Amino acid sequence: MESTPASESSPRGSTRLDSYVDRYAARTAGMTASEIRALFSVASRPEVVSLAGGMPNISGLPLDVVGGAIGELVAEHGAVAMQYGSGQGVPRLREQICEVMRLEGIDAHPDDVVVTVGSQQAVDLVTRIFCDPGDVVICEAPSYVGALGVFKAYQCDVVHAEMDADGLRPDALEQAIRAVKASGRRIKFLYTIPNYHNPAGISLSAERRPEILRVCREHDILVLEDNPYGLLGFDREPHRALRADEAEGVIYLGSFSKTFAPGFRVGWALAPHAVREKLVLAQESATLCPPQFSQMAVSAYLDNHDWQGQIKQFREMYRERRDAMVESLRDLMPAACRWNVPDGGFYVWLTLPPGIDAKAMLPRAVTARVAYVPGTAFFADGFGSGSMRLSYCYPTPERIREGVRRLAGVLEDELELRETFGAVPPTPHLPSSSPRSGYDGPASDLT
Amino acid sequence: MESTPASESSPRGSTRLDSYVDRYAARTAGMTASEIRALFSVASRPEVVSLAGGMPNISGLPLDVVGGAIGELVAEHGAVAMQYGSGQGVPRLREQICEVMRLEGIDAHPDDVVVTVGSQQAVDLVTRIFCDPGDVVICEAPSYVGALGVFKAYQCDVVHAEMDADGLRPDALEQAIRAVKASGRRIKFLYTIPNYHNPAGISLSAERRPEILRVCREHDILVLEDNPYGLLGFDREPHRALRADEAEGVIYLGSFSKTFAPGFRVGWALAPHAVREKLVLAQESATLCPPQFSQMAVSAYLDNHDWQGQIKQFREMYRERRDAMVESLRDLMPAACRWNVPDGGFYVWLTLPPGIDAKAMLPRAVTARVAYVPGTAFFADGFGSGSMRLSYCYPTPERIREGVRRLAGVLEDELELRETFGAVPPTPHLPSSSPRSGYDGPASDLT
Repeated sequence: MESTPASESSPRGSTRLDSYVDRYAARTAGMTASEIRALFSVASRPEVVSLAGGMPNISGLPLDVVGGAIGELVAEHGAVAMQYGSGQGVPRLREQICEVMRLEGIDAHPDDVVVTVGSQQAVDLVTRIFCDPGDVVICEAPSYVGALGVFKAYQCDVVHAEMDADGLRPDALEQAIRAVKASGRRIKFLYTIPNYHNPAGISLSAERRPEILRVCREHDILVLEDNPYGLLGFDREPHRALRADEAEGVIYLGSFSKTFAPGFRVGWALAPHAVREKLVLAQESATLCPPQFSQMAVSAYLDNHDWQGQIKQFREMYRERRDAMVESLRDLMPAACRWNVPDGGFYVWLTLPPGIDAKAMLPRAVTARVAYVPGTAFFADGFGSGSMRLSYCYPTPERIREGVRRLAGVLEDELELRETFGAVPPTPHLPSSSPRSGYDGPASDLT
Repeated sequence: MESTPASESSPRGSTRLDSYVDRYAARTAGMTASEIRALFSVASRPEVVSLAGGMPNISGLPLDVVGGAIGELVAEHGAVAMQYGSGQGVPRLREQICEVMRLEGIDAHPDDVVVTVGSQQAVDLVTRIFCDPGDVVICEAPSYVGALGVFKAYQCDVVHAEMDADGLRPDALEQAIRAVKASGRRIKFLYTIPNYHNPAGISLSAERRPEILRVCREHDILVLEDNPYGLLGFDREPHRALRADEAEGVIYLGSFSKTFAPGFRVGWALAPHAVREKLVLAQESATLCPPQFSQMAVSAYLDNHDWQGQIKQFREMYRERRDAMVESLRDLMPAACRWNVPDGGFYVWLTLPPGIDAKAMLPRAVTARVAYVPGTAFFADGFGSGSMRLSYCYPTPERIREGVRRLAGVLEDELELRETFGAVPPTPHLPSSSPRSGYDGPASDLT
């Protein structure tokens, strides 16, 4: 049936584009499709090697174990699993979450855990309860694109602080804090990914962790520690969480998306008691409660499977892919490129020869059937055009090698063009006057 | 291990109550525990008959069918079901959602559907993209407590418009619109529950539906049609949705929580194309994507089960409980009480004799082992103290009769006290000067 839209007296029917354009909230102007999102449709074409997405490779999960655990869940606890639950999350799962966090030195009580719809929702809820428009969030440079999107949607100002091969620099953090305070604005928290950083691929060194905590304590800055990759180190025990040494000043976010599977959307926040109460109220307002069935499915998996052994398998699989990527980069990339060798997680951060713009080059790369995420996606302020994020988590080693081969070809062509037609107009990435001028790949990991 | 909180130089450690109290966002002041929420802990004690909660009774679901469908899902599509998905939701499920909506006369395309974490999240996301602080949302009087919480959390002003036995009154709506416009404030949408209203238990009559749409069209007011109970009518075909006759001016919200099960948290919004795009961006920011596993589980259930037959069973079960409640009310309640007889959904709205305050009486009711929700929970402005919501959805008919018996006893005691000690100071509910003075239970349904 045809609907009858607005009458002639109404401006609503007057344009076919977006008749609602005048009535959105101010925050909605900040909601725009991310560069990663626009890439998803491209990257899903089978002929393209996607080094763009951050999808975990879960093909190693034992479907018989998962299916058995969930089948038993339905048969024995179906009426509970399919019912509404608590806004804070399933108590048994919150206990198990505390066991998981113990691997990183955290001694927490299940009462202080709030289950969220992936840790993405935890970033959303924390920002919701803390940030008014114009409030400042300090982020590493670069930072996770999904968190930057949340901060933008809540009309926050993001101020970046420089990293190097040992992670966030305490002096850069202190400098950023002082600059913001001098400008009269209010810092609500530091958002940091200390382990196997997305997109930078580096970790905060053990020596720096107390330093970062000290700076935040001195300036009374809350820390939002986002840690989806912490258990995915290739060659070592998990790093000790910032939260392990500072309970009152840190909100810790965790996730089962990379250590089990993302399709259940089960993440969590561990927060000081008063903040936890606000988070539960925000969760109830947002969803009434996180999905009970998902939570009990994750809980049953943890109870019925050697989940730590499974994580070990994931780590070995990702290490093999990391090796495939860095070996190919070493063999194939033009000499002026630099990148780090991550020792965990999903990502390599690659810096291009001066004058090459990763975003401008992307259409040519896609034509050559390889995709990546341009560095600008990971900055709130237009930096990063000379860099890109390469993911090795999802494609097979063979596909990774093929993808790097294609990327190297595109880059050679780009350099040849530049050689032939002279220098491309310089793009404003990483000027030496910037407080982040040093960041274009951690020096000690360059190959 | 013991954590070391803040240093002495930091004000953070200075109070044990809430050291973050000075740094929350302004919106967080609007996040307070609802009256329903505070009741959950009371109502969960087995000796209390809870006529308070809105939990569906899903004990009739065939666990073998659900378990079989989900087991097959894991075995055959586990790698997809447990992976990240689209921010808009699983395409096959969106097709099925269109089939569900067709039962209410809606002809929609799956491209215009956004899957949400329960329809609660749809209310959240719509409010997020439309409402700045101070914007007005018009709601029925009374209205759904969970939606009122969202509007408060986004710092909206709620203006109520009166209902009667035929639902929202077009003249009251028009009056409210004119009053708000005269005050210089901006109305972002009308939030309405046209079918088997929560908490009022009434439906918008067929005659009024085009009238409500006409008023909104003339004043260029968007309609947010929230319809979780639409398929749960006891004696008739589903009402025709507002959205069925107005595609451009209505955002329609649906849910599987009451027609299948709430534990998957699968709801949806059907929106005009441009709004749909904003909702997807908001969803990506909020959660990246709704739970893929939940969506595919619901989809598999719909594919593998006579879901319409199941809904028919639910309707019969709820009708029996409705009968148990209204018969008990008729037999046991004091003469001065009034209530409606709902012909679908979960709720009876009961108005107490003048001078009795439902909220003040609640502790005595709980002592007598019966719980309800005081009417004030369903108003943004303190009205409703002389009313309460009684739910018949979850307890058995026997428990419902016992609950009403206990409630009648409490009320008799209350009236006796009033008789003995004289009139209680009048509470400011439903004064005749209010534009809603007429609403204390739909007149034609009073018994």
